[in-house]
Amino acid sequence: MRITTLDVNGTPTLAVRKGDKYVNLSKAAPDLPNDMAALIAANGLGKAEAAAGAAGDDAMIALADAKYLPVVENPSKIICCGLNYRDHAIETNNPIPEYPIIFFRMITSMAAHNAPMILPKAASDYDYEAELAVIIGKGGKHISKANALDCVAGYSCFNDGSIRSYQFKSPQWGMGKNFDATGGFGPDMVTPDELPNGVGDLRIQCRINGETLQDSSTIQHIFDVETVIETVSEAMTLNPGDVIIMGTPPGVGSARTPNVWMKDGDVCEIEIEGIGILSNPIVAE
Amino acid sequence: MRITTLDVNGTPTLAVRKGDKYVNLSKAAPDLPNDMAALIAANGLGKAEAAAGAAGDDAMIALADAKYLPVVENPSKIICCGLNYRDHAIETNNPIPEYPIIFFRMITSMAAHNAPMILPKAASDYDYEAELAVIIGKGGKHISKANALDCVAGYSCFNDGSIRSYQFKSPQWGMGKNFDATGGFGPDMVTPDELPNGVGDLRIQCRINGETLQDSSTIQHIFDVETVIETVSEAMTLNPGDVIIMGTPPGVGSARTPNVWMKDGDVCEIEIEGIGILSNPIVAE
Repeated sequence: MRITTLDVNGTPTLAVRKGDKYVNLSKAAPDLPNDMAALIAANGLGKAEAAAGAAGDDAMIALADAKYLPVVENPSKIICCGLNYRDHAIETNNPIPEYPIIFFRMITSMAAHNAPMILPKAASDYDYEAELAVIIGKGGKHISKANALDCVAGYSCFNDGSIRSYQFKSPQWGMGKNFDATGGFGPDMVTPDELPNGVGDLRIQCRINGETLQDSSTIQHIFDVETVIETVSEAMTLNPGDVIIMGTPPGVGSARTPNVWMKDGDVCEIEIEGIGILSNPIVAE
Repeated sequence: MRITTLDVNGTPTLAVRKGDKYVNLSKAAPDLPNDMAALIAANGLGKAEAAAGAAGDDAMIALADAKYLPVVENPSKIICCGLNYRDHAIETNNPIPEYPIIFFRMITSMAAHNAPMILPKAASDYDYEAELAVIIGKGGKHISKANALDCVAGYSCFNDGSIRSYQFKSPQWGMGKNFDATGGFGPDMVTPDELPNGVGDLRIQCRINGETLQDSSTIQHIFDVETVIETVSEAMTLNPGDVIIMGTPPGVGSARTPNVWMKDGDVCEIEIEGIGILSNPIVAE
């Protein structure tokens, strides 16, 4: 199943992909929670899929009437795993991490599929980072690697847009990773049954205006999804709908000579094999 | 006004301090939102104060029937400003920051006043950090220093409890600052009219089992409240109820010889002049 959150005439609505349209879940299954984290918490993904399968034409959303919202609108956490591709650590002159590098994005930093990713007034060094997003299902604490994949509700694409000068104004990356609407997230959450187990070898790319700037595979993750879930959940309870983004492969703009920064008018696409294409226009604040 | 969130017979309830009791706002002002961030967003603090002033005995909460919850139960952000006391930067062998060091705590890391702060299984190096908490009022983006104090709803105490070994397993502090229930927050939010403007010289202390281990003043902040609000809001929209914690003074356990760690059975108190005393028992996971 591919499921996402759409703004339908001003109302956030869960929607299940069916061919080239979406099923409006608030019509097809009005008893289910109409919020992604709440639906996951209620163990409602299977019911949503069944209801979408049985839905008639009156429950279909014409895409002209809708725009995307972040796949999960209000995750309680967006956990980021930094420098998690071996080649990217090398290109940025960092040692290969021996332990996952964990930082956070706030929900104010998210941008939906097709929505503008904002180039702030503050700086011009706006970099792209193609990343696999993992959306937590049943969650919990002290989740072992052996059980970790059972705790995943699905996967999506994320663009961990970074204002590099602000990322490095201090030893902590919090500022540069949290400018408003700099983190693309979408278009859909794809459930694990549609993907290879553990998503361990999916091609992942970033393109700007059609030019490929990152092209790698999740096989290059230093810490795989299971390891990151085990590590993070040693400290903190993972809640349904929490998002973990898995780090970016080589080819970021800050590691290029000359640097490549996203500019007003660009279109940045993140494509992950089997998951989809996240597209965002870059728009100056 | 002193206002907080209490669990009254299982229901989260806003409560205004009146003498040695609290007024149950859901009884005294049932039309107001019964959630701190929502009350602030609705510009309802003045109405809450008036309603509490007029409330009769039937709206009073016997403290025996209530327990504290985090002052703001679901802030959209907990923004942390690190190494923000000159002497603390020196005691930890860090350079004096020239720019605020910003990182984040997640809501799963909060612990209410009087609730256990959890010593995790993972490590024993559990450190205390007395901090001033700033709770955002009307919020916004690009807030200037001149307008910053107008955006503050109130102040409280925070204990930025840190698992030092995990804080330094990687260059980013995210893990060590986000173990479940390691960050005490309370007891009340005190509105600015009850405090000196800008809270620029308040005594701040930490005690363990009655022994004073930190004793300084907010006058030692390298970056004051106005500067931190201006800096952070250059990047991210501040929402009503967001929390900013302002860094800790010297005397932390990791800078002592021998180190002082919080142990199961300890009681840790954070006291800030004019604001109150946050008390938490330390309980092993």
